[in-house]
Amino acid sequence: MKNSIGKSVIFTVFGESHGPAVGVVLDGLAPGLSVDESYIAEQLSRRRPSGAADTARVEPDRFQLVSGVYRGHTTGTPLTILIPNENVRSADYGQLEHVARPSHADYAAQAKYHGWQDPRGGGHFSGRVTAGIVAAGAICRQALERKGIRLGTHILRCGGVEDAPFTDVASEIGRIEARRFPLILDLEEAVEAAVLAAKSEQDSIGGVVQTGICGLPAGLGEPWFDSLEGVLARAMFALGGVKGIEFGDGFGLSAMRGSQANDPFRMQDGRVVTATNRNGGINGGITNGMPVVFNLAVKPTPSISRLQQTVDFVEGKEVELALSGRHDPAIIRRICPVVTALTAVVLCDQLALRFGTDYLAQP
Amino acid sequence: MKNSIGKSVIFTVFGESHGPAVGVVLDGLAPGLSVDESYIAEQLSRRRPSGAADTARVEPDRFQLVSGVYRGHTTGTPLTILIPNENVRSADYGQLEHVARPSHADYAAQAKYHGWQDPRGGGHFSGRVTAGIVAAGAICRQALERKGIRLGTHILRCGGVEDAPFTDVASEIGRIEARRFPLILDLEEAVEAAVLAAKSEQDSIGGVVQTGICGLPAGLGEPWFDSLEGVLARAMFALGGVKGIEFGDGFGLSAMRGSQANDPFRMQDGRVVTATNRNGGINGGITNGMPVVFNLAVKPTPSISRLQQTVDFVEGKEVELALSGRHDPAIIRRICPVVTALTAVVLCDQLALRFGTDYLAQP
Amino acid sequence: MKNSIGKSVIFTVFGESHGPAVGVVLDGLAPGLSVDESYIAEQLSRRRPSGAADTARVEPDRFQLVSGVYRGHTTGTPLTILIPNENVRSADYGQLEHVARPSHADYAAQAKYHGWQDPRGGGHFSGRVTAGIVAAGAICRQALERKGIRLGTHILRCGGVEDAPFTDVASEIGRIEARRFPLILDLEEAVEAAVLAAKSEQDSIGGVVQTGICGLPAGLGEPWFDSLEGVLARAMFALGGVKGIEFGDGFGLSAMRGSQANDPFRMQDGRVVTATNRNGGINGGITNGMPVVFNLAVKPTPSISRLQQTVDFVEGKEVELALSGRHDPAIIRRICPVVTALTAVVLCDQLALRFGTDYLAQP
Amino acid sequence: MKNSIGKSVIFTVFGESHGPAVGVVLDGLAPGLSVDESYIAEQLSRRRPSGAADTARVEPDRFQLVSGVYRGHTTGTPLTILIPNENVRSADYGQLEHVARPSHADYAAQAKYHGWQDPRGGGHFSGRVTAGIVAAGAICRQALERKGIRLGTHILRCGGVEDAPFTDVASEIGRIEARRFPLILDLEEAVEAAVLAAKSEQDSIGGVVQTGICGLPAGLGEPWFDSLEGVLARAMFALGGVKGIEFGDGFGLSAMRGSQANDPFRMQDGRVVTATNRNGGINGGITNGMPVVFNLAVKPTPSISRLQQTVDFVEGKEVELALSGRHDPAIIRRICPVVTALTAVVLCDQLALRFGTDYLAQP
Repeated sequence: MKNSIGKSVIFTVFGESHGPAVGVVLDGLAPGLSVDESYIAEQLSRRRPSGAADTARVEPDRFQLVSGVYRGHTTGTPLTILIPNENVRSADYGQLEHVARPSHADYAAQAKYHGWQDPRGGGHFSGRVTAGIVAAGAICRQALERKGIRLGTHILRCGGVEDAPFTDVASEIGRIEARRFPLILDLEEAVEAAVLAAKSEQDSIGGVVQTGICGLPAGLGEPWFDSLEGVLARAMFALGGVKGIEFGDGFGLSAMRGSQANDPFRMQDGRVVTATNRNGGINGGITNGMPVVFNLAVKPTPSISRLQQTVDFVEGKEVELALSGRHDPAIIRRICPVVTALTAVVLCDQLALRFGTDYLAQP
Repeated sequence: MKNSIGKSVIFTVFGESHGPAVGVVLDGLAPGLSVDESYIAEQLSRRRPSGAADTARVEPDRFQLVSGVYRGHTTGTPLTILIPNENVRSADYGQLEHVARPSHADYAAQAKYHGWQDPRGGGHFSGRVTAGIVAAGAICRQALERKGIRLGTHILRCGGVEDAPFTDVASEIGRIEARRFPLILDLEEAVEAAVLAAKSEQDSIGGVVQTGICGLPAGLGEPWFDSLEGVLARAMFALGGVKGIEFGDGFGLSAMRGSQANDPFRMQDGRVVTATNRNGGINGGITNGMPVVFNLAVKPTPSISRLQQTVDFVEGKEVELALSGRHDPAIIRRICPVVTALTAVVLCDQLALRFGTDYLAQP
Repeated sequence: MKNSIGKSVIFTVFGESHGPAVGVVLDGLAPGLSVDESYIAEQLSRRRPSGAADTARVEPDRFQLVSGVYRGHTTGTPLTILIPNENVRSADYGQLEHVARPSHADYAAQAKYHGWQDPRGGGHFSGRVTAGIVAAGAICRQALERKGIRLGTHILRCGGVEDAPFTDVASEIGRIEARRFPLILDLEEAVEAAVLAAKSEQDSIGGVVQTGICGLPAGLGEPWFDSLEGVLARAMFALGGVKGIEFGDGFGLSAMRGSQANDPFRMQDGRVVTATNRNGGINGGITNGMPVVFNLAVKPTPSISRLQQTVDFVEGKEVELALSGRHDPAIIRRICPVVTALTAVVLCDQLALRFGTDYLAQP
Repeated sequence: MKNSIGKSVIFTVFGESHGPAVGVVLDGLAPGLSVDESYIAEQLSRRRPSGAADTARVEPDRFQLVSGVYRGHTTGTPLTILIPNENVRSADYGQLEHVARPSHADYAAQAKYHGWQDPRGGGHFSGRVTAGIVAAGAICRQALERKGIRLGTHILRCGGVEDAPFTDVASEIGRIEARRFPLILDLEEAVEAAVLAAKSEQDSIGGVVQTGICGLPAGLGEPWFDSLEGVLARAMFALGGVKGIEFGDGFGLSAMRGSQANDPFRMQDGRVVTATNRNGGINGGITNGMPVVFNLAVKPTPSISRLQQTVDFVEGKEVELALSGRHDPAIIRRICPVVTALTAVVLCDQLALRFGTDYLAQP
């Protein structure tokens, strides 16, 4: 599958940072879902750089619905979205063709593609590809919302600033999306200041983002290799900066006793619920009907303008590197809509597998 | 795929805790790999309960090579291993048919299988299934070793005890496997004491395990949905108690600056290496030739004999539960060989995809 | 997938002709389907050799339900069936380890497995593996029948004898299965005579079998690479002797004009039907609600005792071969229940993909 | 996978006949393969309508390499080709939104997509999508040729005219491609006359095409569900008009005795060959080193302008239909380069699976 994921809804990404366009194919989505272009544009704008805390490369993200949409609705056949690259300055990357930016994909890509990869702007490894993910995810997310499934992602930790974790996912999603920085608490200025501080030191910072999903039915996921945890994790590690994932209290659970970590079951209005949600809504790989919550460790962006030690992998010699070009000092704000979008795509696949290909379009 | 994983080497698990047998099918492994039954038995013995810190259910793990082995070598056709369940006391589980053990798969399975699941001993969700994983992994691991790829898993943290992280994977694997508890430092008594303390309080504990792999070539993995991180993560979340995974410094990276988190490249004996390995041997989802290192958060086993609040999901009412039966107060020791085995299976698939189906058998 | 097929219901075969057992794993079937062991045994008996027209190797086909069945119903977790090989005379095959039986898999297997394959009785390429397919298919078929979907396979042509093609699938299935040779018309003696004539000349014969399926909903299948035709064809070419497949009038259509080949649509009791069914119930890869009908070309069994020219592929020299051992002079009778069973497995996957994993168990 | 096929080289098609564009994604092809745009254009021109025997809709097929190509070579990342639809006259199809063209996908699509499908020009079911297949196949085919693998497709039978079957694939491919109608013998006028005769009667005709592949190594394919026959068959049934496939003598084998059907092995220049090739180069699903040969039954194009009986599936009533618009009276000429292209894509996947992802680029 490589650049594809999913079994009933199959999602493919393509494109390079400085090529003609990036894009996606979303195949198998139920026919008859409404495709709201203004909502897609709005989600893309949440991912778009804005302000001093982001890269100076701002793309208009004019997307084209190339296939799979007819009269404003999904047809059920492959839905292709193309987003042309318009603001490209490849000269910035001339220096990098042979020089591995530390902790970037450059050297690994060289080992894999033997020098044939497109090095401009990270090529296919560029975060630019996530624009297509956001566009496709917007369609999926609206379909999920019509089934009562809501999801969102916020910055849980960044530069010493700590947001509140999700406690009431449905209401907190609204709050997150009303802010320029996705946060539950009013900490936008503090997070932006932390990013700008790193930038002013020619450095970058990372953080932890948290995704919450509510409204999922119990019984989603498979016992072994298609546990919902495994499927979501595989999807999330597609995103360049993600280096860890934990569900519920995750690594925190590993330091607890069973009597603390177990979520007691209760009855509430005739429905089985848990009193706490330390397991993030998943038991044995399968949803238990509580909100699914997971955290992602996002490393600091590897592109920094400080002087770094590295190698010229063609010449096979050590060199120093001080990056110029336009970079994000942090992707922590911009990754949030991407994570939400990719989660939405994965959930559409899971629901279609469980309840059939028409499920999302059924009233 | 559900209970299968892999594309060139396809691995399937089956079986229930109290059914006739558990087993696996390993399809696509190179022909001509030697199958060393005593090594399989040895790896199974590392997973087997032993001593007061483990469950009292001890299975002899007599495995049968049902297909795919001829004259002591793999044939290249599906290799099936069957491990009969011999020490079964199903009466222990009679109480549980309708009662959800908190944070166990019981209720999620009920929602998914509508009461048709085999509830005895956790049925298909039982850790018993991992015996087959260890047997298959033993064959894969020996094949990897012949190609110079070594891997192992140790307890990094458990009950306040902290082992040293991997610094020289190849040599530390030997040390780990020489101990009854897989640890780099001589901390066996401390870890066992922590487990027994939890047990004496009718409770359980979890921990963090760390896996190291050395000898992998650079260039393994795919940029987006088949990143090596994603593929390994999907596999690891198959294991019941795993609630988090991080590569390299993982969540620790999220609190660093780029200048700290980046691993500078260097030349060493004509080879590209990194001075540090905070990214766990993977950049952009693809190996960079350094050791691959990841940590798993293992929650405390949910089966405890303390009184717990839960529900009878058939009657739809709240009940109290005090588990009897034979349980592990911790799986932290026993999960290590399982993680190593499953990693070995995944790596065999990755290498076959990259270098062809015969690669592992080539001299 | 190699020895597996399916996406929602994943089916895996394993085993060698002279190994301990053959078997299958059927993963993802809806929970709660009744598993009728006597029906499985009955279907296995339809595949079993009987009489002078078949091989002298008769296996009792004592199957074991190793996993996935509890209290007589599917659990929804992997269902494993093991069928031990009991009547094995490997000495018969000693001569063949280096000698390629013409048009058998021997030489191709040598090129693929480099001599590590199990050569006894054809190893994994043996028709013996189809016993597991029949057992799994029996469970699937009963599930389909409960949803009003009926299917069967008969000998359409063999040795100059020509059966009537399906015209009313539902009623003709019953007639077929009431006979020892699966035929719509009363031609059993003629077909058996043709087989015995070939046998008496130390030769073998093939034929064409036809499968009919009625009760399928319209709208099953995908437009391009998962057309129902493509999915069924991929499955059918798993069977050793199959060298061609055609849907509806198939190759006959290629000689018609459009005005002859097109099936006019009509209304019948408020339902859309076609006046003829030359396209075998499939348009554009998708069912149109009419019976799905396909024919398979089955070549004569390659194992004949006549003197043949061939090579010793280890010595690299030409040799003569006169096969001893126990062989079928024709598999045309025995392949019919196998084709039906494999079709049933494929249809269960298709229906689960379309309507969800629980569909087959819903009332 | 639906609109995708392949495991190591994954191929996806998208687009509608009257949408903005059709296109393909070819993911996993070896890096460093040269991409020859003039060869792509040449292959597209072989598929393009020309003359009275084809549809009047002639598209310029201006293709865009949107991703995966850098400096004239494959990068190894997803290669996307977009072919805009420029000559669109949707008004022609206005009559068809509710009326099922007999033996077209219209009604099956309605049953599957509930009216949300794009009906213009057959939408996603249109042969227009095959333009992308030809473009991608051109890249694959040149890669195969560099490894000594040659393939081609000719019209074997059409309207009573019978071409010679392949006897020396390598040399006959050149002859086929030198003609406007792909034929081994000089029968172009006869075939064209047959097509025009059908056209003059407002009718259409079909035929049989034959594909030959030489230079493939022995040992390609898997024993059961990924037999090379099964994999190729699944691919070929993607093509709208294909209703049957046979390998080697196919249905002809079913009427032979074993002693006639078996291909005797011989030694030739130290290599194992067969004296005849009735099994089409495949034994037990795996190549034996002889040319792979298969035939496809292509039904007459269902779009004819004669009066036909059909239904309005929205109104649920019977209607008469006399198609206007631009149609091919036969696709038999134009399907040949499509079959060759799709075969080339499948073979690239098979070779990458067997010998590794870099195989095709290795010298």
